[in-house]
Amino acid sequence: MIILSGGTGTPKLLVGLKRVFEEEEEELNIIVNTAEDVWISGNLVCPDIDSVLYALAGVIDEQKWWGIRDDGFVTHTALKKLNHDERLMLGDRDRATHIIRSELLRQGKRLTDATALLARSFGIDDRIKILPMTDEPGAVSTRIHTPEGELHFQDFWVSKKGEPEVSDVSFDGIEEVKPSEEVMNVLKSGSEEVVLIGPSNPITSIGPILSLEGVREQLKRKRVVAISPIVGNEPVSGPAGKFMQAKGFEVSPYGVFKCYEDFLDVLIVDRGDECWVKDKEVEVVKTGIMIRNGEDSEKLATFLKSVS
Amino acid sequence: MIILSGGTGTPKLLVGLKRVFEEEEEELNIIVNTAEDVWISGNLVCPDIDSVLYALAGVIDEQKWWGIRDDGFVTHTALKKLNHDERLMLGDRDRATHIIRSELLRQGKRLTDATALLARSFGIDDRIKILPMTDEPGAVSTRIHTPEGELHFQDFWVSKKGEPEVSDVSFDGIEEVKPSEEVMNVLKSGSEEVVLIGPSNPITSIGPILSLEGVREQLKRKRVVAISPIVGNEPVSGPAGKFMQAKGFEVSPYGVFKCYEDFLDVLIVDRGDECWVKDKEVEVVKTGIMIRNGEDSEKLATFLKSVS
Repeated sequence: MIILSGGTGTPKLLVGLKRVFEEEEEELNIIVNTAEDVWISGNLVCPDIDSVLYALAGVIDEQKWWGIRDDGFVTHTALKKLNHDERLMLGDRDRATHIIRSELLRQGKRLTDATALLARSFGIDDRIKILPMTDEPGAVSTRIHTPEGELHFQDFWVSKKGEPEVSDVSFDGIEEVKPSEEVMNVLKSGSEEVVLIGPSNPITSIGPILSLEGVREQLKRKRVVAISPIVGNEPVSGPAGKFMQAKGFEVSPYGVFKCYEDFLDVLIVDRGDECWVKDKEVEVVKTGIMIRNGEDSEKLATFLKSVS
Repeated sequence: MIILSGGTGTPKLLVGLKRVFEEEEEELNIIVNTAEDVWISGNLVCPDIDSVLYALAGVIDEQKWWGIRDDGFVTHTALKKLNHDERLMLGDRDRATHIIRSELLRQGKRLTDATALLARSFGIDDRIKILPMTDEPGAVSTRIHTPEGELHFQDFWVSKKGEPEVSDVSFDGIEEVKPSEEVMNVLKSGSEEVVLIGPSNPITSIGPILSLEGVREQLKRKRVVAISPIVGNEPVSGPAGKFMQAKGFEVSPYGVFKCYEDFLDVLIVDRGDECWVKDKEVEVVKTGIMIRNGEDSEKLATFLKSVS
C-alpha cells in the first residue's frame, strides 16, 4: 500500500495500519509532505516526517500528535531565558532527531536516506518505507497569505495560533523541486498497489505532494482511496477549513472530493455524514473515521483493507 | 587589565578577578583562545569562550570547569540511543548557548558581537569584554600529533582521554587568520594596562593567541604578568605537561617562563616552588597559586592587583 501523509491526521491512522499490516507480507510506502520543513537552531525540522516516525515508533505525543511523549524542554527554555525565541517549541528528545537528520545531510546524504536511517534507529520495521516527497530539503515553503502579509505555515499555525484570516496558500519553490526517485518509482510501479490518501489537510499537507511534477498523472493510473479529514462541515483538527475556503473549496467531504476529483476512486466519509454524492465517478463509502485512540485507528485500518 | 584566557585554568581565576574588579572603574578585557572551537550538532561550540561566560555568570560547573552546573543531558543521551555519538558531551542548557551564538553567526554577526550579546544575556557586567582571539570562527584547529595520527584537540582530550603519546602540536589554519579588530585595539592601546596571562596551558590554550600575527610584538611593549599553570613538575590540571614536552619545554615554572621569555616581565609561581631563576630579565614572585574554590581565586586576584 502507498500512503500519502502530512500533518497529524494520517499519522493517527498509521498507528492502526502498522498493526494491521504487521501480519502481512505487504510493504507500506509512506510518501510524506516536506513543504513545512524549516531550519531551526542549526538543524532541519521536518514536522510531517517526524510525526510519521514517532507514530510508527510508538513514541508520539498522543495529545498533540507531534513531538515525543513526555519530552523535556530544557534547551528551549534556556534559549528563552537568554532572550532567544526559538521558532517552534522543540523538545530535548525531538531535537536529537533533527540533529541526526541534519548531520547526515551535512555528510552529503539524501533526505530519503537520512529518513531511512532514522527509521531504523527508531526500530521501525524495514518493510515500512518513509519517503520524503522530495530530496531537496527546505526547498519548498508553505506560505499562508493573510491580511498581515505572507506567513510561513509554522508562523501562522504556531506563533499566530491559526487566527489570521487566510486569503490564499502557496508553495514557494514547488516548481523547482522534483519528487524523489523513490517516490516516482513507487508511484510508477506496475503493481496493483492502492494509494491511500490519509485524513490530512488536502491543501497544505497533501497539496504539496500533488503539486510535484508527474504525481497527479501517476495517481490517475492508480486506484486511489481518500479518507475525508472533514466530518460534517468541520475539519477533525487543524486549519484545513480556512485553507480549503481560501482555495475556493467547500468545507465538507464534497469539498475534499473536489480537491482530488481528477484521480480519486473512493472517498471514505464519516458514518454520520449525509450521502451527498452528486458525481458518479467516485464511490463513496461510509464508516467511523474519527480516530480518538489506537483502537479507533486499528478499526479504520482494518476497514480500509476491505475496500483497498 | 587585559587577560589572556583559554582552557579551564584562567576561568577559575576570573571568578576572583571579577569580584576584586567589581568595585573598581577599570575594564577587564579578556582575550580568549578559539583554536578548539568546533561545529557540533549544527552549532559552533567555543569551549574556551563558554568557560569564561559561565565562570563570569556564576553558572559554571565547578567540578569540571566547563559546562553549566546541574545541566541535563537529555538530547545527548537521546542521540546515543539513536546510535549517534555526539563528539562532546553537550548539556541541554549549554546547547542553548551554542544555538544562540550560531544563529547570530548565521545572521551575519561577527563572533565578537555574538559573544558580547551572549555575555549581556548572561547578565555579565558590560565593563567586562570577552574578546574571541579572531572573528573567523572555526578557522583554526588545534591538532595533536600522536602515534595514532593527528587528532583534533577535543578528540585527543575527550574521546582518547588524553592518553596517547604526543609528538607535536600544531594549529591548522593559524597563518590565515587575523586577530579581531577589538583584540588588536586593546593590545595597541597606549594605556598602561597590564596584560595578565592566566594559569592556562601555554601551548594549546595561550599558544594560539600568541601565534596570531602582531600579538607577540604588542606584548613586548606591555607589562606582562603570567601565572604558572605548573606547580612543581606537574600541571595543576589538564594535558599541559605532555604538550610542553612535545614542544621541547621543561615541565616546570621555568618551562613556562621559556614559553613566554620574549615578552614576559613577571612570572608568578607557587609558594612551594624552588627559586630557580636563572634569567635576570624576569621577575619571579611567589604566592599560593592553587585555586580550589572562590576564596582561593579571590585571594590570588587581590595579590595580582598588587603586582600589576
